[in-house]
Amino acid sequence: MKPTPILDTIKCPEDVAKLDSTQRKQLAEEIRDFIVDRVSKNGGHLASSLGVVDLTIALLSEFEPPHDQIVWDVGHQAYAYKLLTGRKDQFETLRQYGGIAGFPKIAESKYDAFGVGHSSTSVSAALGLLRAKKLKNDDGHVIAVIGDGAMTGGMAFEGLNDTGHFSENLTVILNDNQMSIDKNVGGLSRALSNLRSSTRYIKAKSRVERFLLHIPLIGRPIARFIMMIKTWFRLLIRRNVPVIFEDLGFQYFGPFDGHNIDLLRKKLKIAKAINGPVLIHIVTKKGKGYPLAEENPSSYHGVSPFDRETGVKPSSTRTFTNCFSDSVVRIGKEHEEVVAICAAMMTSTGLANFRKNMKLRFFDVGIAEEHAVTMAAGMAVNGFVPVVALYSTFAQRAYDQLLHDVCLQDLHMVLALDRAGIVGADGMTHQGIYDISMMLSMPNVTLLSPCNFAELDRMLEYAVADAKGLVAVRYPRGGQCEILEKIPSDDGIGPRVIREGEDVAILSLGVMCEQALLAASELEKNDIHARVIDVRCVKPCDIETWKELLSGITKIATIEDGIAQSGFGSYLLTLLEEAGEMSRITHFHIFGVSDHPLVAGNRKLLLEKEGMDEKTIEKTILSWF
Amino acid sequence: MKPTPILDTIKCPEDVAKLDSTQRKQLAEEIRDFIVDRVSKNGGHLASSLGVVDLTIALLSEFEPPHDQIVWDVGHQAYAYKLLTGRKDQFETLRQYGGIAGFPKIAESKYDAFGVGHSSTSVSAALGLLRAKKLKNDDGHVIAVIGDGAMTGGMAFEGLNDTGHFSENLTVILNDNQMSIDKNVGGLSRALSNLRSSTRYIKAKSRVERFLLHIPLIGRPIARFIMMIKTWFRLLIRRNVPVIFEDLGFQYFGPFDGHNIDLLRKKLKIAKAINGPVLIHIVTKKGKGYPLAEENPSSYHGVSPFDRETGVKPSSTRTFTNCFSDSVVRIGKEHEEVVAICAAMMTSTGLANFRKNMKLRFFDVGIAEEHAVTMAAGMAVNGFVPVVALYSTFAQRAYDQLLHDVCLQDLHMVLALDRAGIVGADGMTHQGIYDISMMLSMPNVTLLSPCNFAELDRMLEYAVADAKGLVAVRYPRGGQCEILEKIPSDDGIGPRVIREGEDVAILSLGVMCEQALLAASELEKNDIHARVIDVRCVKPCDIETWKELLSGITKIATIEDGIAQSGFGSYLLTLLEEAGEMSRITHFHIFGVSDHPLVAGNRKLLLEKEGMDEKTIEKTILSWF
Repeated sequence: MKPTPILDTIKCPEDVAKLDSTQRKQLAEEIRDFIVDRVSKNGGHLASSLGVVDLTIALLSEFEPPHDQIVWDVGHQAYAYKLLTGRKDQFETLRQYGGIAGFPKIAESKYDAFGVGHSSTSVSAALGLLRAKKLKNDDGHVIAVIGDGAMTGGMAFEGLNDTGHFSENLTVILNDNQMSIDKNVGGLSRALSNLRSSTRYIKAKSRVERFLLHIPLIGRPIARFIMMIKTWFRLLIRRNVPVIFEDLGFQYFGPFDGHNIDLLRKKLKIAKAINGPVLIHIVTKKGKGYPLAEENPSSYHGVSPFDRETGVKPSSTRTFTNCFSDSVVRIGKEHEEVVAICAAMMTSTGLANFRKNMKLRFFDVGIAEEHAVTMAAGMAVNGFVPVVALYSTFAQRAYDQLLHDVCLQDLHMVLALDRAGIVGADGMTHQGIYDISMMLSMPNVTLLSPCNFAELDRMLEYAVADAKGLVAVRYPRGGQCEILEKIPSDDGIGPRVIREGEDVAILSLGVMCEQALLAASELEKNDIHARVIDVRCVKPCDIETWKELLSGITKIATIEDGIAQSGFGSYLLTLLEEAGEMSRITHFHIFGVSDHPLVAGNRKLLLEKEGMDEKTIEKTILSWF
Repeated sequence: MKPTPILDTIKCPEDVAKLDSTQRKQLAEEIRDFIVDRVSKNGGHLASSLGVVDLTIALLSEFEPPHDQIVWDVGHQAYAYKLLTGRKDQFETLRQYGGIAGFPKIAESKYDAFGVGHSSTSVSAALGLLRAKKLKNDDGHVIAVIGDGAMTGGMAFEGLNDTGHFSENLTVILNDNQMSIDKNVGGLSRALSNLRSSTRYIKAKSRVERFLLHIPLIGRPIARFIMMIKTWFRLLIRRNVPVIFEDLGFQYFGPFDGHNIDLLRKKLKIAKAINGPVLIHIVTKKGKGYPLAEENPSSYHGVSPFDRETGVKPSSTRTFTNCFSDSVVRIGKEHEEVVAICAAMMTSTGLANFRKNMKLRFFDVGIAEEHAVTMAAGMAVNGFVPVVALYSTFAQRAYDQLLHDVCLQDLHMVLALDRAGIVGADGMTHQGIYDISMMLSMPNVTLLSPCNFAELDRMLEYAVADAKGLVAVRYPRGGQCEILEKIPSDDGIGPRVIREGEDVAILSLGVMCEQALLAASELEKNDIHARVIDVRCVKPCDIETWKELLSGITKIATIEDGIAQSGFGSYLLTLLEEAGEMSRITHFHIFGVSDHPLVAGNRKLLLEKEGMDEKTIEKTILSWF
């Protein structure tokens, strides 16, 4: 890594504001080098962060956080912001247990105005911050920075609509990084927009508008004529302007080069001067400054440690996502009624191959989980079996659509919940630990949890070909260990014994079978014979099957990588109690995530912290004897 | 009621298509008279249904369901559609147990293309239906009918965005009933739009576009010039057109008089002829044809039975909503940091009075629950205490925002969940029975359930002034009976005994205390002394308090108007089991809603059907002795 003489002097945003133009440019280079260096060593979100280094410097030069508040949508692009707001020395700990978060987080710094992680929340949050300021007569500015991808989320539209309707004094920066850019937005020449956004034009426009407001009724036809001429003029200079923002009540400026710090500062000054909603459209390059990432930004979105010179290498470890990818292609080829749907995550969810093979039956709807699910429901009504692939944490966005549009109507749909369970470094906002609780209360739901690739493949086949209603299949980030791989499959999808024993039953969900089997091996050394049951089907629970599987058992432990107090363990306990089966049970313990936000950390460590590791399981069960 | 000679002849949509222009107009009048008559007798959604009678006739004249599919957004406007698609004879049973639903429902009729109830789902669902048709080479049309209110829901935007992007052949009818009309949409003259939407203009436009597509590269500059001229021309004839829809890729036509059946048919013909997304903007009058409803449509949105001549009377029964309304005003006056937020339901949630008294601190964000919650979260960050008032069922829309933007960030916000529990006639899509399960898995949540008005008032005060994190207060539709009213308040918000006894403990949530107390009285006659505990605080559960309250008890029944298998009873059971308290408990039964969609019906009847009425509770407990 090169030295970072200017970055080293920046202790707070004010230090950025003091720099001159040349120093700012150098600072941008230093930050890029620093980020590439650290992320190549520790992993993280690279391409997005490199894209907004210049914007971050411009923002901190013109605005004064924490008095002015900046909300970063999604937040994976906020590395430069973290570096420049006093967190450079902690940067080594990024995304690690006890370290600073990979996303802005209120509790971490006064400069993080709002916590983020999921997409499309920034406009709403920023509007809330602003309205609070207004009520307190606080004249601080509020800025939302949102990508063109996040802009497709309906929530962003709701926020823009409300902001525009009430002409709130919000600045929205549309960070258009050309990754999923809408054609209407993209086809605009800079020369024309420069003219439009120049201060002189704005002043002239405001004057005309004030004039029009004061015109007497009798003069209105003339005013209308002037307006028409004005509109013609506007159209002349901004053919193809994304009028959508203007329709929503925003003054639109752009697009501008998002890597020209001086230019950005000029535009931010204008935004500051305007009273009312402003949208500044900037164009940036994901991965800017690191050629490998510029060429292939999606490979450098979220990365594991890599060699800076040679770049990221495709991982040789096969993951559950890879397995899903292969299975869904195979199943899609066999079943013509299968369609695959994702929300702007074709590669990450493993659907790229499906698209390659069955393009007409593949639908990427943009960052729009709600729409994804209900659109899928529509297809289900007309005879298709949609496989909707979402990360567990993002499926939360579609809670109402799953319940109201799929379950209550009893439509047949497959929900592939990737990254279910503990996700590791992405932390609190991305943990896939709520899906079990989420699905349990919905009617007409089957919730499956495979312990290895073979089981995932079988369950998907079952979900498509044999099941009814909403079938959710949850599987974790990462791959299968040897222990899991060795667990044999059978024909069923219900719970089954994978290790015989009669002293205690350990019921484990999905990949938590590893911990169950390891604990069972250790218990064996103490002459305690644990019956390990792979739960597989979380819901519906067939109580007769469970009675049989638990026959002779008086001690039960359940293990799930979800919220303990309202997940599978609790559900099974309720059913056993109702069936009168609990009377003979002397011990019942639910291993799961406690009732608190689960921060970042590697999975093994978090399992320990949550008391869900094999050692704690063993120890707890030992104490029963 | 007047005779309905034409309506009587309509057995299916084909019969509508056979009518002539005069007959269609008469049919519209007959339908209006019929609907006013029936709704005045049985209650229902009046104003919206009257508004789209003409549109419905026009649609059924031009399209052929079920081959063509019509999706009604929200669906409370579909009464005429139900009448004309073979359900006139069942109309008496509308919204009653075992009768036809108040909303379109797939299982009810082949003419109901998609089940609805919640807002803003129609475009997504219709797009799904259409894509399925396309894959099957089915040339049927799909039409989404959506109100201008529902259009503010972000999901609708997601749907439009996807539809436009892929130029799908969908027809969207924007039913602008001027209730919450956006100014950009409203200011358009019919003369101009007529010109724009005439078949000749469309044909000319298509010809120009085909020509442009075939122009050789060398001629492109000329083509661009032609395009520019064309754009100028378009602007000339459609100043103020809501370009937002065109930006999203739709061809926009309108606005048209939504009560002119012949005109509507003409426009629908055009939409049918166009290949690609079309948005037809029609203007209708809510309550059309019933003067009282025309004058005051919001009073005639959803109504109880009323006198047709004199109209609806304000109910004299005080409701939980009234109580909330008064409390939030009182609390707002005392606490300057309180802001109130609703999603297009100011009157229904009881916030109208708050707005009247503290206008600057009131925010109606439109039908946008997601945005409502995250905007509130922003205000909370900057020191305010937002009270967000939503119906329980609509809060489902904001699941991710509650979890991700409020709970994980541990922000202080009050969520007023109106219509929690069984709602009655609105049925399946509107039951407030999922909120308990929904909130239980979220961290930093307090979930309170008042049994009467006095308790609601106290809990709101506590939620604003003394609590931290997200405090949800759930209360039902309707009022308090005498039994509930008499339950005294104390200083706490935790569980407390409201009837002494030692033979069995009945733990009841909120208004279910009525059933608990009634059952206890009956049990007394059998010399069984039941201890009735008003749960009040569903979460967090203080196990020590519960140990004390349950001391000496071996039999427990819990009662909640939520999903039984994943609600309070299950939660408490889990905690008692973990605390080793279950060993002495011989009986534990959870009374709650079973794991299936809960249809319409009056509350008393549904309680019986679900085995949650006082008689079933008494009988169950008796069997334990």
